[in-house]
Amino acid sequence: MDAATFILFGSTGDLAKRKLFPALYNLFLEQKMPQHFSFIGLGRKPFTDAEFQSYVEQSLNTFSRRKPSDHSALKAFLGCFRYYALDVNDKAGYVELLKLVQKREQELGIPENRMFYLSVAPEFFDVIASNIKESGLGDTAGWKRLIIEKPFGHDLKSARALNAELSKSFEEEEIYRIDHYLGKPMVQNLETLVSANPVLGALWSNRHIANVQITASETVGVEERAGYYNSAGAIRDMFQNHLLQLLMMTAAISSPMQSAERNIRKQKIGVLRALRPISKEDAAHHIIRGQYGAGAIQEKPAVGYREEPGVDAASMTDTFVAARLWIDNSLWQDVPFYIRTGKRMKDKSTRIVIEFKAGIKEPYGSGEQPTEPNRLTIQINPDEKITLQLNQKNALNNGQLEPVNMEFSMPANQLPDGYELLLFDALRGDATFFAHWEEVELAWEWVQLVLEAFQENRLPLYPYPSGSYGPDAADALLEEQGFHWWQNESGHKAGSRRSEKVYQQV
Amino acid sequence: MDAATFILFGSTGDLAKRKLFPALYNLFLEQKMPQHFSFIGLGRKPFTDAEFQSYVEQSLNTFSRRKPSDHSALKAFLGCFRYYALDVNDKAGYVELLKLVQKREQELGIPENRMFYLSVAPEFFDVIASNIKESGLGDTAGWKRLIIEKPFGHDLKSARALNAELSKSFEEEEIYRIDHYLGKPMVQNLETLVSANPVLGALWSNRHIANVQITASETVGVEERAGYYNSAGAIRDMFQNHLLQLLMMTAAISSPMQSAERNIRKQKIGVLRALRPISKEDAAHHIIRGQYGAGAIQEKPAVGYREEPGVDAASMTDTFVAARLWIDNSLWQDVPFYIRTGKRMKDKSTRIVIEFKAGIKEPYGSGEQPTEPNRLTIQINPDEKITLQLNQKNALNNGQLEPVNMEFSMPANQLPDGYELLLFDALRGDATFFAHWEEVELAWEWVQLVLEAFQENRLPLYPYPSGSYGPDAADALLEEQGFHWWQNESGHKAGSRRSEKVYQQV
Repeated sequence: MDAATFILFGSTGDLAKRKLFPALYNLFLEQKMPQHFSFIGLGRKPFTDAEFQSYVEQSLNTFSRRKPSDHSALKAFLGCFRYYALDVNDKAGYVELLKLVQKREQELGIPENRMFYLSVAPEFFDVIASNIKESGLGDTAGWKRLIIEKPFGHDLKSARALNAELSKSFEEEEIYRIDHYLGKPMVQNLETLVSANPVLGALWSNRHIANVQITASETVGVEERAGYYNSAGAIRDMFQNHLLQLLMMTAAISSPMQSAERNIRKQKIGVLRALRPISKEDAAHHIIRGQYGAGAIQEKPAVGYREEPGVDAASMTDTFVAARLWIDNSLWQDVPFYIRTGKRMKDKSTRIVIEFKAGIKEPYGSGEQPTEPNRLTIQINPDEKITLQLNQKNALNNGQLEPVNMEFSMPANQLPDGYELLLFDALRGDATFFAHWEEVELAWEWVQLVLEAFQENRLPLYPYPSGSYGPDAADALLEEQGFHWWQNESGHKAGSRRSEKVYQQV
Repeated sequence: MDAATFILFGSTGDLAKRKLFPALYNLFLEQKMPQHFSFIGLGRKPFTDAEFQSYVEQSLNTFSRRKPSDHSALKAFLGCFRYYALDVNDKAGYVELLKLVQKREQELGIPENRMFYLSVAPEFFDVIASNIKESGLGDTAGWKRLIIEKPFGHDLKSARALNAELSKSFEEEEIYRIDHYLGKPMVQNLETLVSANPVLGALWSNRHIANVQITASETVGVEERAGYYNSAGAIRDMFQNHLLQLLMMTAAISSPMQSAERNIRKQKIGVLRALRPISKEDAAHHIIRGQYGAGAIQEKPAVGYREEPGVDAASMTDTFVAARLWIDNSLWQDVPFYIRTGKRMKDKSTRIVIEFKAGIKEPYGSGEQPTEPNRLTIQINPDEKITLQLNQKNALNNGQLEPVNMEFSMPANQLPDGYELLLFDALRGDATFFAHWEEVELAWEWVQLVLEAFQENRLPLYPYPSGSYGPDAADALLEEQGFHWWQNESGHKAGSRRSEKVYQQV
């Protein structure tokens, strides 16, 4: 791995403390860091290097999955860290920063490979990128890379504007857009599951798959994020990025028999290009909006979204979105992809359920017993496991056909955090699990019409009780094709509950 | 279920005591017996009814999986039992027996449905069948059925002669030939696995399956059965019946997509008809014979077969047989079926391993790591479980591809014994899991050439150490197609050991 300088904007922020320092430390312990590296923390606080190193150490003690125990290793790690107080709008500061970066490069004898991580509010992305360029920080004899996190824009237009700004300072292949869902070990495992297992590869198409159900449900409410969430809603907070990424991954992976294209990012872009657009007029037929009302989460009473602190009593913000999408290519033609995400749902779970087609009806005997369709459930959160549901005769029950689960779990507590995997990839220049601009743009293109339909009040906003599976209207999305949501592995169908109420815009 | 009379020849024998009485009792407890039934035990011992009932009760106390606890239920069960001392060669005895059967039918008010179970040495099959006919026992206004167990002949000729004899007294559809492997819950589950699970049905052909490996290995030696075993060998004791049955089941089951024929017996016969015959000249190329020598089973020393009591010091009896078979039909063309059975092997295990074809090699990245082929392992004995081996990225090991197992087990201790399932089926007239005469005859036809090759000493007899996986020559059978035996679920390949020794006939 190339020796490099890691320059972190926002190094006194929450993400740095909880995720980035621990991730770098664990990579360091696993010898997945360059042998020589320079870390420059930036922020507005007036830290000395020693104070900053102590701040980093505290973060490791609190948040790292491996707590520092080897004193000399810790010392070596912290010794790489320097701090510089920067006002991101102050051009002169960047010039000083460049001097510090160069000084450290010379001290360590490392090439001018520079990684810029922008762990700051998105409104600063463009000014920082521009100042990196203008100050000469970006003029390196080695490589330069930029890591940013969502939100990549607030809608299609603002996303394009942001990208145009960034493009002035960084080439597309220098930009690493983190969608932390792509850092989850089970998501990174998806492509392998299909490509390295011919038995799954053989099944991975519309020939055998009836539908795909992608769920990301949370039990928490808006918490202290109402300010941001009011203007984002579930559609921007979860759907446009994480959930469409899971859809892309599921549909992009294919067995080597099916596609010679093994570049997962190209395949994902191909999926988005094949996504059937919806019209605003027809949006209500394919998209369901919901907002949580009062209810109970695991028997604890919970207030409705409109009663949350910082939320308008007549808020029309969506805390739940479900959608039915179609991918018009030869592999996925006629396979509906059902996606939903919501807050204050019954379960906390991120998972992909592949429902296979039912066999043809048998003309005799055991075949007349109703059987459940086979399903492959890829659980991403809270635990990472894969379950295959099969039917077998239960010898204890007169040979009745009954569903059984085969499963394996990834070890729960020892898995690397997604940021370890992603920073490791970024450091070695592998962008496989980062979002390409085309992915972001095409995802916004699809979502833009939905946003407009929301704004034009073309889509009803259904209330749903906290602790439920969301509004009943989301069930109807599947019923049209004769399916239902698989609410959990036991395969029970959601109870039938029909509310007619719709929130009216005031 | 029809009320019926159950007439057991050999009712003081081992099978009756260990298996049949307990099986009937458990069916009785589960209300899977006719509401009224008459049981007539036959044997040479001079039992009274009361003595016989007490003998049955003792068998239940010792061998039944459910011990008698409800006194009135036990009393009701035992009250059905009568005993008659019969010399099977004495025609007059059958006439008296008929009177007893009819007396009980009248007492109980049940129709003349009569089940004859011949739990006696096979040399008595024909005289009993003939006397049943001549005495009028077989002239019933209801149904009559005959249950017999292997051996069904000693070779093709004797099997045909036996069947010709039985056919004089019973129609083919009245004859229920027990192969107790077909009574095992996991074997009875096989057809369901493929027909009720489209994901497995889709994979169940030469399109996706590379080879099939059927193993029935024992750790025990010949024990006290040398007299029988010397003249039978593994080829007659295990191969011609149990192992070919497992092959037939594996190849006969198919998804409803593949075959409209849902009669499993017809499909099994079709498999045997498609079995590629071998010539005596070529037999050594496809069949490996072995005989266990001294060694150790789980670190306990074990003598060789020739040192066993009752075995000739120059015995050429096979205690191990491995074979490569080809099924020349469209589903299985080019898929080798490897079969092996042996005594004094390393493990006690009966299982079917389906090895799937490897994917095409990938031109990039992770695909270049070697992966194990996917396998479905159907374990029949000692425990009943199904394992699917997949490959996944190990996030704890830099994302290296590693095999993982998904599995589910049937509950070990509560499963019904195979005799319960088989007697239940026979009582309700379902012959699905009994061997049809054509199956027996075609199996003998294939084996007959092998027997002759054995007799003509065309096949070397390889010694193998007790506690091993059999002679190395059995590995070569697979190596010709580039495969190896999967010795156990962990997927380790057998160690490479090459013995050149061959036993010479003296």
